[in-house]
Amino acid sequence: MRLECIAIGTELLTTTRVDTNSVWLAQRLASLGLGFHRKTVVGDGREDMAALFREALERSDFVVCTGGLGPTFDDLTKEIWAEVLGEALIEDPEIWQIIQDRFAALKRPLPDTNRKQALVPARARALRNPMGTAPGILWENANGQAGKWIVLLPGVPREMKYLWEAEIEPLLKPMAGAPMHTLRMMVGSSGESAVDARTTPLRTKHGHLDWTILAGLGAVELIARSTKPEELEAARMDFEAELGADLALLGQGSLEERVLDLLRERGEMLAVAESMTGGTVQSRLTGVPGSSDAFKGGAVVYSASAKAILADVDPALVQVHGTVSEPVTRALAEGIARKLGTAWGLAITGNAGPTEDKAGKAPIGASFMAVWGPKGLASQTLSFPGSRVDIQARTATWALDFLRRQIQACR
Amino acid sequence: MRLECIAIGTELLTTTRVDTNSVWLAQRLASLGLGFHRKTVVGDGREDMAALFREALERSDFVVCTGGLGPTFDDLTKEIWAEVLGEALIEDPEIWQIIQDRFAALKRPLPDTNRKQALVPARARALRNPMGTAPGILWENANGQAGKWIVLLPGVPREMKYLWEAEIEPLLKPMAGAPMHTLRMMVGSSGESAVDARTTPLRTKHGHLDWTILAGLGAVELIARSTKPEELEAARMDFEAELGADLALLGQGSLEERVLDLLRERGEMLAVAESMTGGTVQSRLTGVPGSSDAFKGGAVVYSASAKAILADVDPALVQVHGTVSEPVTRALAEGIARKLGTAWGLAITGNAGPTEDKAGKAPIGASFMAVWGPKGLASQTLSFPGSRVDIQARTATWALDFLRRQIQACR
Repeated sequence: MRLECIAIGTELLTTTRVDTNSVWLAQRLASLGLGFHRKTVVGDGREDMAALFREALERSDFVVCTGGLGPTFDDLTKEIWAEVLGEALIEDPEIWQIIQDRFAALKRPLPDTNRKQALVPARARALRNPMGTAPGILWENANGQAGKWIVLLPGVPREMKYLWEAEIEPLLKPMAGAPMHTLRMMVGSSGESAVDARTTPLRTKHGHLDWTILAGLGAVELIARSTKPEELEAARMDFEAELGADLALLGQGSLEERVLDLLRERGEMLAVAESMTGGTVQSRLTGVPGSSDAFKGGAVVYSASAKAILADVDPALVQVHGTVSEPVTRALAEGIARKLGTAWGLAITGNAGPTEDKAGKAPIGASFMAVWGPKGLASQTLSFPGSRVDIQARTATWALDFLRRQIQACR
Repeated sequence: MRLECIAIGTELLTTTRVDTNSVWLAQRLASLGLGFHRKTVVGDGREDMAALFREALERSDFVVCTGGLGPTFDDLTKEIWAEVLGEALIEDPEIWQIIQDRFAALKRPLPDTNRKQALVPARARALRNPMGTAPGILWENANGQAGKWIVLLPGVPREMKYLWEAEIEPLLKPMAGAPMHTLRMMVGSSGESAVDARTTPLRTKHGHLDWTILAGLGAVELIARSTKPEELEAARMDFEAELGADLALLGQGSLEERVLDLLRERGEMLAVAESMTGGTVQSRLTGVPGSSDAFKGGAVVYSASAKAILADVDPALVQVHGTVSEPVTRALAEGIARKLGTAWGLAITGNAGPTEDKAGKAPIGASFMAVWGPKGLASQTLSFPGSRVDIQARTATWALDFLRRQIQACR
């Protein structure tokens, strides 16, 4: 089966916006043992779209298009496909009702332009989209050809992902090879090349698995795929033995979910004081549903006075060591935990740039993190490369992993 | 002139690696008044590449390919183009000498495979690449057709960029039209379809401009492009008059940068207390370099006690109205500003789900925001659709825009 992906939108050709939907789709296809032979980005122009759609219909068995299903004048994907296939657009009364209900529930006026989102090409069917107003569109035997698929999905990632998982994957599964199983391991507090080098012998030993290493900003994922679960299980045991406490998590989920789970198991609460990361760690923690069970709150202590007022840091300590220093970070971790009455406190200071610290004590990339817990204080000093936002993101991830290690070590 | 871009590499189809070269190239082309009509990613397979190259030769006047010029077995871009054009590959002795000298200077052994990097198709010329070993390749009248360009560039961004700027741009300039100018306007506190409907008459009036609408989570961008700055200026005046205070920003930048600029102009500082958004607003503010000039700090008040301890909210008020309520949000905005001694305070509470508030007072999506400033308190109550993270992101954007409006209104 030849599959291709088309992303539609002039903004993907002319602005710095990048098509990430196709990257996500390629990962999902890989889990079914499938992959794209080509990905194309095209603008909103009628002729450019029509030419591309005709070619894709010719050369591929399965065409997935993202974008151009919205209500505005430049959303033409459905119309152009209907033209290429010579099909009329017909209003689907059920979809139209759903759109009306959605706007009514949100108490928003329903613009006339949204009505075109209820139009469905004659031989396609609409895929209900509870995440937004644009339904997906599916032809299972497009152009009268058996086994020719065309799938139109909204460009908004969460809507695209929902429709793919709920509507398209179940249809693809019977056609895929043997189902692929996945072993996902996240290694915390490590860079990509270090994890690569360290795990080369074990990846060679388990070389019959299909391996991917994905580096994020501050954590590395090792992913193995196989049709045989017992092979993944053997690899898991070997990697657990090799990685020990460096294995941040096994299976799905994020580092912040892992930290919250560990806290919940202990029935303890966390407070956080962030300077350099400016709320990033707390934003990640509170992005997890139910985080209020284990996260009580915290402070963004972006000035010396905020450190004193919100986390009771002694101004004399700041005077001696500077706001960006290990002693002040340790005082922040203990201070915020005592202030909010939690068992655990996490604190972060550092210099994300772009300017050097005036006193020269904290060069760009310098990063301090401290954890206050039942066994007292632990802290570490690190240095990260990259842009301001990169340094903040890497530091946030390393700090969450540092906290995870302290909680796991507290037995 | 029809231009297209082809990125070559199986890793761009199967991993999370994204083709960013084409984004950079598109920006450079825009400055010459040019743009791609299409971008394609293809893997290393001979047949897939050959088919795509033949199509591109047919439909475009200018084809730029990135990647696949390296020394390894899967670097085939040059060979396949030579095949498609029916040209022999001939060793360029000057390029071969440069490669030998480069390895000698680095005191590295020269692998045999690198010799193929000195091969040049018969009717093309090599572009010397001082940043790496892979020369670029250029046909100015490809396939014997006047005005048909094919450019092959290495996939390594810094090599690609060097060759583009040093070798290709000087050739393109005489052919370029007038440079494209851009008018970017961000509309705050609005959805995409509302902005679309409201601005349709003006976009029709200025229909000779090239328009794009981009919806983010909580803000909408309107982008117009033209070779004539005076046309953009006329549109700008009309849109400013129409949008008034709803126009969050003009030109480049983000909403958080705009808020920080407005605060700096007034020489005033901001403090923030976030409950539902859990640090997202503060994380966005501190992502901006130099934000400490205008942002003093704040709290993530993820529990009733954190609201009392960090922002001095009277527990009796929480008792009466609930933690997620307009009165508590107003008390938070004033409380955090007074606590940190800032002129401005922003506070957010709400319910991002996935569970309903126990008291039933705050359904999922309910969102309260309040601003404390020199003219006292302002607040608003809203409701947002979507997932937990979506609701948090939308609320953060609307809250930043609500704050922007209060600062702008304070004259």
